[in-house]
Amino acid sequence: MSRATDTWILTAQCPGVLGTVNAVTAYLYEQGCYVCEHQSFDDRLSGNYFIRAEFGQPDHFNEAAFCEGLSQQLKPYGMRWELTAPARRMKVLLMVSKADHCLNDLLYRQRIGQLRMDVVGIISNHPDLEPLARWHGIDWHYLPMQPDGKPEQERKVMQVIEQTGAELVVLARYMQVLSADLCKKLDGRAINIHHSLLPGFKGAKPYHQAYEKGVKMVGATAHYINDDLDEGPIIAQGVEPVDHSHYPEDLVAKGRDIECLTLARAVGYHLERRVFLNGSRTVILK
Amino acid sequence: MSRATDTWILTAQCPGVLGTVNAVTAYLYEQGCYVCEHQSFDDRLSGNYFIRAEFGQPDHFNEAAFCEGLSQQLKPYGMRWELTAPARRMKVLLMVSKADHCLNDLLYRQRIGQLRMDVVGIISNHPDLEPLARWHGIDWHYLPMQPDGKPEQERKVMQVIEQTGAELVVLARYMQVLSADLCKKLDGRAINIHHSLLPGFKGAKPYHQAYEKGVKMVGATAHYINDDLDEGPIIAQGVEPVDHSHYPEDLVAKGRDIECLTLARAVGYHLERRVFLNGSRTVILK
Amino acid sequence: MSRATDTWILTAQCPGVLGTVNAVTAYLYEQGCYVCEHQSFDDRLSGNYFIRAEFGQPDHFNEAAFCEGLSQQLKPYGMRWELTAPARRMKVLLMVSKADHCLNDLLYRQRIGQLRMDVVGIISNHPDLEPLARWHGIDWHYLPMQPDGKPEQERKVMQVIEQTGAELVVLARYMQVLSADLCKKLDGRAINIHHSLLPGFKGAKPYHQAYEKGVKMVGATAHYINDDLDEGPIIAQGVEPVDHSHYPEDLVAKGRDIECLTLARAVGYHLERRVFLNGSRTVILK
Amino acid sequence: MSRATDTWILTAQCPGVLGTVNAVTAYLYEQGCYVCEHQSFDDRLSGNYFIRAEFGQPDHFNEAAFCEGLSQQLKPYGMRWELTAPARRMKVLLMVSKADHCLNDLLYRQRIGQLRMDVVGIISNHPDLEPLARWHGIDWHYLPMQPDGKPEQERKVMQVIEQTGAELVVLARYMQVLSADLCKKLDGRAINIHHSLLPGFKGAKPYHQAYEKGVKMVGATAHYINDDLDEGPIIAQGVEPVDHSHYPEDLVAKGRDIECLTLARAVGYHLERRVFLNGSRTVILK
Repeated sequence: MSRATDTWILTAQCPGVLGTVNAVTAYLYEQGCYVCEHQSFDDRLSGNYFIRAEFGQPDHFNEAAFCEGLSQQLKPYGMRWELTAPARRMKVLLMVSKADHCLNDLLYRQRIGQLRMDVVGIISNHPDLEPLARWHGIDWHYLPMQPDGKPEQERKVMQVIEQTGAELVVLARYMQVLSADLCKKLDGRAINIHHSLLPGFKGAKPYHQAYEKGVKMVGATAHYINDDLDEGPIIAQGVEPVDHSHYPEDLVAKGRDIECLTLARAVGYHLERRVFLNGSRTVILK
Repeated sequence: MSRATDTWILTAQCPGVLGTVNAVTAYLYEQGCYVCEHQSFDDRLSGNYFIRAEFGQPDHFNEAAFCEGLSQQLKPYGMRWELTAPARRMKVLLMVSKADHCLNDLLYRQRIGQLRMDVVGIISNHPDLEPLARWHGIDWHYLPMQPDGKPEQERKVMQVIEQTGAELVVLARYMQVLSADLCKKLDGRAINIHHSLLPGFKGAKPYHQAYEKGVKMVGATAHYINDDLDEGPIIAQGVEPVDHSHYPEDLVAKGRDIECLTLARAVGYHLERRVFLNGSRTVILK
Repeated sequence: MSRATDTWILTAQCPGVLGTVNAVTAYLYEQGCYVCEHQSFDDRLSGNYFIRAEFGQPDHFNEAAFCEGLSQQLKPYGMRWELTAPARRMKVLLMVSKADHCLNDLLYRQRIGQLRMDVVGIISNHPDLEPLARWHGIDWHYLPMQPDGKPEQERKVMQVIEQTGAELVVLARYMQVLSADLCKKLDGRAINIHHSLLPGFKGAKPYHQAYEKGVKMVGATAHYINDDLDEGPIIAQGVEPVDHSHYPEDLVAKGRDIECLTLARAVGYHLERRVFLNGSRTVILK
Repeated sequence: MSRATDTWILTAQCPGVLGTVNAVTAYLYEQGCYVCEHQSFDDRLSGNYFIRAEFGQPDHFNEAAFCEGLSQQLKPYGMRWELTAPARRMKVLLMVSKADHCLNDLLYRQRIGQLRMDVVGIISNHPDLEPLARWHGIDWHYLPMQPDGKPEQERKVMQVIEQTGAELVVLARYMQVLSADLCKKLDGRAINIHHSLLPGFKGAKPYHQAYEKGVKMVGATAHYINDDLDEGPIIAQGVEPVDHSHYPEDLVAKGRDIECLTLARAVGYHLERRVFLNGSRTVILK
């Protein structure tokens, strides 16, 4: 499930019919591409087919010509596909509030190269985490929320997204509910971390809800956002055992590690083009 | 967390005030009881105090006199307590429907001595599992559910419980919703296994619900029953990672192991007197 | 990772060169085979390539002709391959001693159809588990070990293997060290469960060794046997947290669940043709 | 297992005889101390008894007088004990080389108050991590290793330990083998993180060893150092599943999270006085 740094990634999805896999592999073979990783999944309930291949670059590779040919090859199958170059780093915008554990973790993983992304900026509705952003040399956008000011604030958020060219937005414990309008604009390209094992404990203060219920496990869920709060397609979930001696604040503390690990895993899958949307669910080829 | 086979168990709970622990340990010391395991928990939110001690039997031990003295000692603290003899095996009644994995697992654990209980009977609303019961030499009660016959069937269930002297009822995938009346009668002495990580996916077909939601974890919850379906105090929860390739029937298959392990753990805690009710939550001293 | 019951499985391995995947997928396409699951792995350190595909049977399918053509197609790549029919159930021989937890677990999984195998017999060097075998209606072979009688006993073991046509031998807590000669004969077709997380605690009484060392985790390892004790290629490992309160006998008890789950998982991988030998390691396509 | 911030901690250990628990609880009661957490463990194999209690400070509490009286009370039992004040923060010295994941993680947990310690300095044999130390405002000691210079370097290490008054030394991926002499001086007060599940894969490059062996789990072990490399009493272990697709560098990457979590857990136990040495093993009361 690791990714070599010098391979191209080809992802595709289409209705499942005879010949889909072969259409891809035959073309890669003709073009002299050595496939070092290949997965496919045929969802027999939804009838969708998902393919992901990594391949080494052949001599005399011409990306434009490759794409042109591939387009011809895959058209009969109604395949939507995407090609990602080896050195390609996705532009990612982070959004945070006051809690810094996910931010600290994501920046650390980017710094050591575990998450291959370019963090093009950090937006926050609070001023607290600016020093952390500055130390990593990342642009900081303080966009406070005024009473009745959500439309205006979100307009500025969209402005930052557009100006930075961000391809992915990560809500790394951003404690504001996005408007349906903004959610829609970010459909499929914004990942949120919710601090419960969804669908349990939606909404506010999930650790306090978990305490009241007396659960023996707490968890975190990384998911794409959509217009229903905490309801978008799930990418990754993590869990930890707890017991009666954990008060709500202990669950909060315990949850930090799970949130970091779960969000980092989801972002990694997205960056490596392993996540496919399949209705309200995800397919993750790893 | 293991239990020696030759120790007495003393459990107690009361409002948390100064001197509660000492009241117990001082008495045990006076009586010459060697305490080999001792836990206590002070719930600073509910204000309740929980104590569990295991001790070796001293020479010239007289249970009645011990209890009489202990009663005197603990009265000022409003302590409810229970003493369990070393060789004591709880009488347990199992209730099942068609799925046999939990039954098979519990009977196996009883047979090898891991769960120290006497299974005094098995009730089922289906005839399928009789051979398994017979092979283990356990009384089999086939109590089918007739249309509109729940009151009558449950009357017979209570009759078996009374005749066998069952102290604990284990719903080992018994696929009937008990009436509020029966639930009330079994309050605190019936354990159910629900095949989801509650509070997620209450009610029917939780694995199918989990599939629809696209979760990346499935789980099971063992809990005491109360009058709200799937809402009683949780004793144990287990979880397993899953992915997009698991169809509902795969989740069912995967879940069997978690259900067995989770239910067995909960029953073990109960048999070893480790579970205390604390409002709608449990305290488990292990 | 589930397996549909009506699909053919094609597995293949060869040196990793351009065109390997395509050779397989192109042939399947030509033959009208709908590929519903396909994985491949290119080991860039060993230079080996591994392929596993499941496909639905096309109309007018002729197995012999299919194999003949495939053989032609794959010859240039030096590919070793195997085709497994949908209804095909592997013949499995179990070997046990006195502990019955793995046996009970495997027979249960076979009975409910989770492990699709035909258990063609059970060999034991002790008489204890005969009733369990009989209840499941399986042939029982009591082959006790006489002093200096290992060659003779193993000769009889091989005789049973041959007479039953067993394709896989599972050492489900068989507490005898097999001779190098027998190991060699069973190379790649015998799975053992060792009750530690190898390479830690090889040899006898691993839970006692684990206790002495004071570890905080115990585990189990399912592996193919080879001629070096506890050193064959690992298929699956499982682990459980423990603490200071677990005496050796508690580790033994705790370990039973992990052993069952780990062995069942390994056997399942083998039955579904997911395991490939790759030098002293395994590749598991799931 | 959480720790309130306003409680005293009393830990004690002694040979297991009748009255040990009572000696402690009776004294706490007499002194008006409200015990909010209490654990004890009687090791029936080693014959040692371990006690840990947290209690709220009573009115008019005099620490010196309390200790004097306790000393009298516990003397007959040969009890070694320690009292820790609520606001007490242990002085901790960190030692690192080039890898910064554990350092980053520990400093983060200290910064947010999850690990209540005063980091009094960081020693390194490489200059790389100085900026990280500086950003956290912590004294940096660059003590490079010259050829044949270990005695001199270790003399300087001891000098820093003494000057800072460090009570605990944490080897947070310090990639130098300490001399037997230094190990001895730090006996019981230095914690190391080894990147394997000991006793598997001792020594250098454990992830590469794990790759060669083809294990399906990798882990990390936090332990006290003693004079035998990687052999001191184990405090905590963590583990993660891996598969054939993880090359050695992937295991290294995967292992970072487990190392951080395992080391942080062990340091937390130590800071909260939960760890007791019991021969070559540890008892952890939580």
